[in-house]
Amino acid sequence: MDKIEHIGIAVKDLEASNQLFAKLLGVPPYKMEEVASEGVRTSFFESGPNKVELLEATSADSPIAKFLEKKGEGIHHIAFAVEDIVSELARLKKEGFQLLNEIPKKGADNKLVAFLHPKGTNGVLVELCQEIKAKEGR
Amino acid sequence: MDKIEHIGIAVKDLEASNQLFAKLLGVPPYKMEEVASEGVRTSFFESGPNKVELLEATSADSPIAKFLEKKGEGIHHIAFAVEDIVSELARLKKEGFQLLNEIPKKGADNKLVAFLHPKGTNGVLVELCQEIKAKEGR
Repeated sequence: MDKIEHIGIAVKDLEASNQLFAKLLGVPPYKMEEVASEGVRTSFFESGPNKVELLEATSADSPIAKFLEKKGEGIHHIAFAVEDIVSELARLKKEGFQLLNEIPKKGADNKLVAFLHPKGTNGVLVELCQEIKAKEGR
Repeated sequence: MDKIEHIGIAVKDLEASNQLFAKLLGVPPYKMEEVASEGVRTSFFESGPNKVELLEATSADSPIAKFLEKKGEGIHHIAFAVEDIVSELARLKKEGFQLLNEIPKKGADNKLVAFLHPKGTNGVLVELCQEIKAKEGR
């Protein structure tokens, strides 16, 4: 785990929360992105080497909609940057962690991502993410 | 806000969670510390430029005991590093954020810390922290 890549925060109203976090962090979001497969609209803020991701549900069966219903707004997950997500998932599986995604999937912000089950990590939803690099020499 | 300084995670059993997070992060905790004024025992793990702090309650009226009772184990707060906590608190107060600590207090890991009320930050308990530097020339 190279660093905390980002913290994901579930919010009800992305536009209102964008304004709030711009005041908090002193910078506007550098990107907004919809991830249709996850049923979320996201925005990203830079904080030095780290990011804050806000997540709003776009459908009632989105994981974020379910989280908001159950727990209300707040921190949804913590994402760690890794160099090689496949080998890191293999290492964690061997250590006994339960993977929610055996195979990494395409997430927001140009990343391959996979989640660990929070029941095995003290209630914390942990995401691993690896940047998708443009292939060199093409 | 210079970076995410650390993420604070409320746990029931610090020793067991230390072992778990050592496996997860691939490193042992670099420090354990009790903050009697807050009723917590803490441990700290490095993750590149960031840290993960585990917090265990040492008394029934500790904020962590109350959090565990209400929400169970999980992410408790996010801390941002700032250069000058006094001026940053003044800026945030002017922006309309509600301060839980008008005056910074001594926290764990050699920091001056202050919290914002989560009701004003989408349910997220936000901590600001400034490193206490040894005075030069003494």
